[in-house]
Amino acid sequence: MKVLVTPTTDMRNTDKYITMNHGSGGRLSQRLIEELFLKYFSNDTLRQMPDASLFNSPSKNLAISTDSFVVDPIFFPGGDIGKLAVCGTVNDLAVSGAHPMVLSCGFILEEGLELSVLEKIIQSMAVTAALADVQIIAGDTKVVPKGKCDKVFINTTGVGWVEPKNKTISSGIGIKEGDKIIVNGPIAEHGMAIMNEREQLNFKSDCVSDCACLNALIESTLSIDNAVLFMRDATRGGLATVLCELSERINVGMELVEEQIPITDSTKALCDILGFDPLYVANEGKVVMIVASNKVDVVLGKLHEHPLGKKAQIIGSITSKHRGRIYMETSVGGKRIVDVLTGDQLPRIC
Amino acid sequence: MKVLVTPTTDMRNTDKYITMNHGSGGRLSQRLIEELFLKYFSNDTLRQMPDASLFNSPSKNLAISTDSFVVDPIFFPGGDIGKLAVCGTVNDLAVSGAHPMVLSCGFILEEGLELSVLEKIIQSMAVTAALADVQIIAGDTKVVPKGKCDKVFINTTGVGWVEPKNKTISSGIGIKEGDKIIVNGPIAEHGMAIMNEREQLNFKSDCVSDCACLNALIESTLSIDNAVLFMRDATRGGLATVLCELSERINVGMELVEEQIPITDSTKALCDILGFDPLYVANEGKVVMIVASNKVDVVLGKLHEHPLGKKAQIIGSITSKHRGRIYMETSVGGKRIVDVLTGDQLPRIC
Repeated sequence: MKVLVTPTTDMRNTDKYITMNHGSGGRLSQRLIEELFLKYFSNDTLRQMPDASLFNSPSKNLAISTDSFVVDPIFFPGGDIGKLAVCGTVNDLAVSGAHPMVLSCGFILEEGLELSVLEKIIQSMAVTAALADVQIIAGDTKVVPKGKCDKVFINTTGVGWVEPKNKTISSGIGIKEGDKIIVNGPIAEHGMAIMNEREQLNFKSDCVSDCACLNALIESTLSIDNAVLFMRDATRGGLATVLCELSERINVGMELVEEQIPITDSTKALCDILGFDPLYVANEGKVVMIVASNKVDVVLGKLHEHPLGKKAQIIGSITSKHRGRIYMETSVGGKRIVDVLTGDQLPRIC
Repeated sequence: MKVLVTPTTDMRNTDKYITMNHGSGGRLSQRLIEELFLKYFSNDTLRQMPDASLFNSPSKNLAISTDSFVVDPIFFPGGDIGKLAVCGTVNDLAVSGAHPMVLSCGFILEEGLELSVLEKIIQSMAVTAALADVQIIAGDTKVVPKGKCDKVFINTTGVGWVEPKNKTISSGIGIKEGDKIIVNGPIAEHGMAIMNEREQLNFKSDCVSDCACLNALIESTLSIDNAVLFMRDATRGGLATVLCELSERINVGMELVEEQIPITDSTKALCDILGFDPLYVANEGKVVMIVASNKVDVVLGKLHEHPLGKKAQIIGSITSKHRGRIYMETSVGGKRIVDVLTGDQLPRIC
C-alpha cells in the first residue's frame, strides 16, 4: 500500500488529513480520539480519557517492556506498523516469562497523514491486541509539522504479571551441556519482506513477514515444569544475535546445524540474491528457546500443536567444548564461527 | 542551547554523532546503552538489558500512563525534553491518585544528533527521576535517517499503584456547590517560556518553564481524608481546558475570580504582547484541584508547606446557578464566559 504525502494546500481539511490542531489537546484532538481511537480500542477505561488508566493485576510480580516502532514502509506483506507495535511488545513480555495484560500506545503523527491510513493502522492494532488477549488502555497522540517525522511512529509499552517460577527465564540459569536449542519456525522472513517491499526491488517473491503475537504459544511451553531454561524473541540482529549474546553472557558454547535451521525457499533465495546472511536478519514472530535435554520431546510436542509452532525444530545444542563460542556445521559439510555482527544491519525494520 | 545538525560528511563519527548503526541492535547499540543510558539510569534491572524488566508492586491496584514528547526547542529556560518527559508522566500518574513506581523510556533519535546533546538529556532525566523517587527500568532506542524526525522524540510510560480510596479522584464524584477550585501556583509559564525561546522573539523576559514533578505535593494532600474531590494537571490547553472538560462532563457551574488566579508579571506581560490568553497556555507543574469547602484550609496549609505549592491559591468555586458553564469575574469588574478553545493552540509545547 502506497502512502501519499498530501500537497500543503489541502492540508487544512481536518476530515481527511492530520493537521497540527489534531495534536493541540482541544476539540479536534478530542474528535480524533472519539472517532478513531475509541471506535477500535473500545473499552471502559479508555472511554473515560483519564490522564492515567487504572487496572488490576492478579499478582504483585510485574514486568514492563517498551518499544518504539519506526518501520519503513508502514504497510508491508504480512503486516503494518500497528500490528508490529502490538506484537513486538507482547512478545518482549512473553519471552520474559510474563503474561501480558495491558498496553499503552503513543502516536507521533506527521501533519498531512491521511486519516484513512491512520484508521487502517488503529484497526490493525485492535485486531492484533484482541487476538493476543491484551487490552490497549492508555494512549497519547502528538502531531509534528510536515517533514519533522516520517508519517507515523508508534510507541507501545506493555505490562504483564509474572509467576515466580518464570522470573529467571531471561537469565539462562541452569543451562548445561546437551540442552537443546529450538526455534519455532522459519527464520529471516520479517527482515526480507521489509527489504523487498521498501527497496522496490521487483523481485517476484512470496516473502511475507512472520509478525505475530507469541504469548499463547510461549505460555503453553512454560506450563511444563523445568523445561524451558531460556528464551528470547529473535528480532533486530536475528537468530545469531540472540545466541551470541547468551553464549557470551553465561559463557557456554553452542553447536548449530545449518540444515536443521528452518527457512523457506523464497526467503533463502532473496537472501542469496541480496547477499544477506539469514542468521542475522530480523524476525517478528520467532522465539529461540534453550530446553532441558530430557524435556525436549514434550516441549516440541507442545510447540507443534500450535499454529505458530508447527514448524518448530531443534537447531543445535549446548556444548562445554568451546565456551563462549558458537560453531555451525554448514550444509556443504564445513564448519563456521557464528559471531556478533559488527557491520551494517538493515535499518528501520521495526 | 543551540543544537546543531551536523554536515553529512562527518556523520559516520560514531564517537560524536548518532549514526544509523546506533539503532541496529548490534555492537554500537550495545555501546550506546552501556556508555550513556546505564551511566545515568543505573539500576540492577536495567543493567541486565532484558526484553522486559521485572518489578514488584505493593498493590494489585495499578495505573498506567503514556506520553510522547516532541517539544521544540529541546532545551528551554527551566528544562529540556528529558526533564519534561519524566515530569509529564509522573504528574499524569499522580493526578490520577497513583503513586508512581517505574518509568519506561523510548527514544527516537535523528541520525547526526550529537552524542553530547543526548547525554545532557539523559542526565536530566536521571536527576528528575531520582528527585521524584521513580525508577527508569525499561528503555528502547531507534535511529531514523537525517530529516525523518526532529533531533529527538521521547516516549515515557509510567506505572503506579493506587490506594482504593483514591481510585475515583479523576472522576469528580462528590463535587457540590461551594467547593473550592485551587491551583498550586502561577499559570502559563511553560507555554510562554517555550514560545519565547522558539520564536527567538528577543523579548527580554525572565519567563521560565514551571516543569516539575508534583507527586510528593499531591500525595501530601491525598493524605487528608475526603478533601480533594478532583484533580488534574493543566498541561496542553491550560487551566481553562481542565475546568471546561470537568464542568461539561459532570454538569456543574464554576465561578472564577481573575484577580485570584496567580500569574507572574513577566508571564502576563508576554501574554499581553503576543495576544495569548494565559488561561489556555500550557503548564507543566500545575495541578488544579476541587476541594471540599470544609477542608480548604487544611489542604491549602499542606500545599503552602511544599516548595511547589507555596503560591497555591483559591481561584474560584463550584456553583449550581449555571450548570455546565464557567464564568469569570474579570479584573476590570466585568464578567466573561470561559469556554473550550476551538482555534489554534501553541504547537509542540510538550
